[in-house]
Amino acid sequence: MTTVVRLWGIILNGLETYGCTDLIESLKGKKPFFICTIATTATCKIPRISGAGANTELMIYTPAGDAEIMVHGKTLCCDVPKTVSDGISVPTPAMITKGVIELTDVPFLIANAGSEINPEVPYISINDEGGGDIRTGHAVIDPEKIFEDAKIIAKEISKSCDYLVIGESIPAGTTTALGVLTALGYDASFKVSGSSPENPHELKMDVVHEGISKSDIRIGDFSPFDAVKTVGDPMIPAVAGMVIGSEVPVILAGGTQMAAVCGFIRKLDSDFDFSNVCLGTTTYVARDETSDLVDLISQVGEITVNVVDPYFERSENEGLKNYLKGFVKEGVGAGGAILMALLLGYSIDDVREKIEEILELNG
Amino acid sequence: MTTVVRLWGIILNGLETYGCTDLIESLKGKKPFFICTIATTATCKIPRISGAGANTELMIYTPAGDAEIMVHGKTLCCDVPKTVSDGISVPTPAMITKGVIELTDVPFLIANAGSEINPEVPYISINDEGGGDIRTGHAVIDPEKIFEDAKIIAKEISKSCDYLVIGESIPAGTTTALGVLTALGYDASFKVSGSSPENPHELKMDVVHEGISKSDIRIGDFSPFDAVKTVGDPMIPAVAGMVIGSEVPVILAGGTQMAAVCGFIRKLDSDFDFSNVCLGTTTYVARDETSDLVDLISQVGEITVNVVDPYFERSENEGLKNYLKGFVKEGVGAGGAILMALLLGYSIDDVREKIEEILELNG
Repeated sequence: MTTVVRLWGIILNGLETYGCTDLIESLKGKKPFFICTIATTATCKIPRISGAGANTELMIYTPAGDAEIMVHGKTLCCDVPKTVSDGISVPTPAMITKGVIELTDVPFLIANAGSEINPEVPYISINDEGGGDIRTGHAVIDPEKIFEDAKIIAKEISKSCDYLVIGESIPAGTTTALGVLTALGYDASFKVSGSSPENPHELKMDVVHEGISKSDIRIGDFSPFDAVKTVGDPMIPAVAGMVIGSEVPVILAGGTQMAAVCGFIRKLDSDFDFSNVCLGTTTYVARDETSDLVDLISQVGEITVNVVDPYFERSENEGLKNYLKGFVKEGVGAGGAILMALLLGYSIDDVREKIEEILELNG
Repeated sequence: MTTVVRLWGIILNGLETYGCTDLIESLKGKKPFFICTIATTATCKIPRISGAGANTELMIYTPAGDAEIMVHGKTLCCDVPKTVSDGISVPTPAMITKGVIELTDVPFLIANAGSEINPEVPYISINDEGGGDIRTGHAVIDPEKIFEDAKIIAKEISKSCDYLVIGESIPAGTTTALGVLTALGYDASFKVSGSSPENPHELKMDVVHEGISKSDIRIGDFSPFDAVKTVGDPMIPAVAGMVIGSEVPVILAGGTQMAAVCGFIRKLDSDFDFSNVCLGTTTYVARDETSDLVDLISQVGEITVNVVDPYFERSENEGLKNYLKGFVKEGVGAGGAILMALLLGYSIDDVREKIEEILELNG
């Protein structure tokens, strides 16, 4: 990972901020609204590309299952052991986010940007079609509509809160993030994150380049919407639309996939002012040696990255300790959700204990 | 219409309140969130049953079209002259509600409780199936799920505001309201409202009794959910769920259909406390001699009915004046939306002028 200058250091226990802390300071004690954006692309059916699910066959159910865990504490769409990844017991990050939501009582909604499986929960419907396998060069049919509809949703919800926290659940989402970043001309090779300790960079790059090769457009010449259409996913235009539609600040709750969202916005509007936008992610992403979030973000612009450390090494839950080994790392807005709890005055220990309680009850 | 005692009289210009004004006084200047609940049943395809659409064939498109007008100012799902009812030029109440939303900048979302046609807008998805023709005795497949999912949505959204205002758009909704009220044992004959000057009570009652006759359950013996399953519509359990799920007061924006929602809730929980729930409707419903809102409400319990008079007789728009002749009367939460504007400090003249402006631009 590139060495970064930590400009302001630790401002809250469990939080480090890379960049300017003005925004995050201004959000302390304010009223958030949490939106979890779910989506799929058939890219997740490629063997070994993602660890975000119990196995390759069930991967496509992960976003719907995460939404169900957030709302009901358990999966309904499928009978999946929700704490298993590659045979290793690792609680889904949906449990982390659910823990924060229960602790803080922050209002939250699921936004469906396009998931092959609909969750058995009420949700905001932005798009009802999952994306394709990006190797075909046909990833998302109408990203403009997803973007415009997401703008409308964020505009309305943002009128009722002081800031939005937007997370995502999409398996193989780092591959499609790599696709969009690459198509847009960013240097993203070996820099996107992954949900398992062994980050299959070569496989991800092969998949992306196979998709790009199906298009007549050359790397760097793609418009943001063409990049998504060819090798992206429905989450990226949805969350980008929410950022642009929001009338209040936005915490993008995630890692390198949110870097792709920022990269998309930057190419859409080179003058876009990111001073009311920041990232909130976990230390497991930020310190990951197989990826480079801060470098990706710095290619896009001056965007602050807030990194929370939930100190899972202090947990009695063995599954949570597997996050330290590089499993899962982030997802379902877990990092940004924890950041939100800190901003609301909860301690990082409050958060971890609540997550342990949730796992005890539902694990 | 039954003579009613106006307990508190006019508390704001353009508003009369029948019942206790404590709740409405407490909401002045507070932050609302508006939800427009759309749904259909195939009952609306029965000739002459409803005036809520340009003609019988297009009736099923009305809720989706109303949602599109609210969001985009025009219909997208169908190419319908949106200011025509039975050949008479009458602006849809969606234009009234849109006018209020634009004037007040209140956050709003569309909730789809089950519409045969999906609107081309982002919306909260509670149920994706329209209801059946109630003459079959098979109106709504799973009202319990609609009710439970609507509770979840209202619980979350209510955390972000001081009160909810919930409207509806469902053609032939007074017939299904009559169905549910009748099945539950209320005396609703000749008391539900209608969207045209000639209220086809006999037709509505025939349709309801045909549906009830398909069931083994006798009038008065229906559970609330069985009443909806047999002769109801998806809107009723959705809005009832929202009332019960909300953590803040609720203004039910509508007339006799909202009386059916209250009647449903009363039978579900005989101890339900309605002190944080009231109706907001138009004078065109309240003073309608072909129906009796206040009698229906008084059968359910002590529920305050707030009646706004938009003084459309003062308008230069000839279409709006047709509301005085008994066309449309209410819908898409128009009355409750106007009430919300009054509570936010706008005058009834501000409201009417904004509606005229909206009609000028989009009519």
